[in-house]
Amino acid sequence: MELAEIYAAYRRIRPYVHRTPLLTSQLLDALLGKRLLLKAEHLQKTGSFKARGALSKALALESPKGLLAVSSGNHAQGVAYAARILGVKALIVMPEEASPYKKAAARAYGAEVVDQGVRVENREEVAKALLAETGYAFVHPFDDPLVMAGQGTAGLELMAQAGKLGVFPEAVLVPVGGGGLIAGVATAVKALSPSTLVLGVEPKGADDARRSLEQGEIVRLKEAPKTRADGVRTLALGRHTFPVLREKVDGILTVSEEAILEAESLLFTRTKQVVEPTGALPLAAVLEHGERLPGTLALLLSGGNRPFDPWP
Amino acid sequence: MELAEIYAAYRRIRPYVHRTPLLTSQLLDALLGKRLLLKAEHLQKTGSFKARGALSKALALESPKGLLAVSSGNHAQGVAYAARILGVKALIVMPEEASPYKKAAARAYGAEVVDQGVRVENREEVAKALLAETGYAFVHPFDDPLVMAGQGTAGLELMAQAGKLGVFPEAVLVPVGGGGLIAGVATAVKALSPSTLVLGVEPKGADDARRSLEQGEIVRLKEAPKTRADGVRTLALGRHTFPVLREKVDGILTVSEEAILEAESLLFTRTKQVVEPTGALPLAAVLEHGERLPGTLALLLSGGNRPFDPWP
Repeated sequence: MELAEIYAAYRRIRPYVHRTPLLTSQLLDALLGKRLLLKAEHLQKTGSFKARGALSKALALESPKGLLAVSSGNHAQGVAYAARILGVKALIVMPEEASPYKKAAARAYGAEVVDQGVRVENREEVAKALLAETGYAFVHPFDDPLVMAGQGTAGLELMAQAGKLGVFPEAVLVPVGGGGLIAGVATAVKALSPSTLVLGVEPKGADDARRSLEQGEIVRLKEAPKTRADGVRTLALGRHTFPVLREKVDGILTVSEEAILEAESLLFTRTKQVVEPTGALPLAAVLEHGERLPGTLALLLSGGNRPFDPWP
Repeated sequence: MELAEIYAAYRRIRPYVHRTPLLTSQLLDALLGKRLLLKAEHLQKTGSFKARGALSKALALESPKGLLAVSSGNHAQGVAYAARILGVKALIVMPEEASPYKKAAARAYGAEVVDQGVRVENREEVAKALLAETGYAFVHPFDDPLVMAGQGTAGLELMAQAGKLGVFPEAVLVPVGGGGLIAGVATAVKALSPSTLVLGVEPKGADDARRSLEQGEIVRLKEAPKTRADGVRTLALGRHTFPVLREKVDGILTVSEEAILEAESLLFTRTKQVVEPTGALPLAAVLEHGERLPGTLALLLSGGNRPFDPWP
């Protein structure tokens, strides 16, 4: 994957996405003894970086009749948003047992949710049948160079914004599920600043990317891992993302569920930002592995979609 | 109260406070049919505007031995922070039954919490005895021109930031408890843009400011009102704030508890910002009285101190 692909994606999607801010927090810096740059993708359109990749793909298609995706997470909203920009329909295949919150979120962005009779086991089949029937274009959540390039635009912005601040991250920490985000971000970061480390972050119970890089081949989890970080419950890296990670990612850090929760809480109470568990993975890595990490770190806060809890 | 007092306060406190951003949200604008400018005091030092007033007072004192305040809310943290800047001690008198969360928050900012044997009924006496004993300076949460001028600096910034965006608010909506914030903000806004309306917002069950302005004298609530918005449970306006409100505030809107909750939820899910119930009052007023309000509105999000709720 080349930097040029990411620039091309950026030219396509720029009118439709937020250039999300790069936040800083003196409180967090003092608490953790680091200089942190927080790339705020929880403030992105649809509440996560997924809008970038879905738009990058959708805008590269030649007049698609509609978009179809299999997702019970942020990708659903990204595809729904992309379809709205194109003025076409979005069909999202989701298991019946997916949370009503997630179904409602996809519908709120204008998608049609297909869930009747859909289970985790048969959702790919349902999607294939629907694709044949409708002629819609399939948008993969990560394993597609156009999607990966779209996610990489967050890395482009991050480096430009850090440069403007006059602060150069020694490492960029990125959540890893299927690897689409880190593949794109690593491509951008390594092209612009080869000495900056790009580190993935996974929950301890979902460390397929770490094992895949260690073993030099894609390791597939036997079942969906139990973790708060529902955005990275993917079973395996993809055939397009894996080689990019092998080439460009310097390492994978794993974090405990306790560290994820603590990171979410710090972001909530100290920076007043609503970040979902997956988006808190990079800060969890700083909490758990801070002593092994350099002093100036960029953290990719990937999303902020979580339900509101009234209090008290 | 004059604009010059607010500029003087700003010169004192500027090195120690954040120039908080003026946020916008296309989603909220589309949903509510308004152009909203959100003055983000939940991102202020200590998590609320109270740092401005406490610092404005503390930095005007001649070498105080320490600071003392009576508060179980954000003012406690503001005074603790001001004391830290001055390098002196802060004593905060708080009823024993105040929430452990609030005591911990004040202590986290370095204050000493005095709560043994303290009840709501005797806390003023306890404070007086401590003042006599320690020689510390008392910092009132609102009824002090130096405190009011400090809070007004949020209004100065808001107008400058709106001007830079090229958007001029037709009305500024501000939560009202003791009236310190709105007195300062109204002074700044009316001096800089006399045609901009300044509107207070109170919960329906805590409408003493509305009644005070209507009756032309300070109306005192019989007991602390029950409302989610714990920052405005004050019983009455002060003798310094009331005349400023009479002169400069154009009206008071009251809102239901349901509207406050809905406003908090919108800020959480749509803007990904953690805003406490009191800080959500202005948005609640837009939800409940939108049709009576002009199209371009600045909302003062006064604070963001609420505990983190893990989810799921």
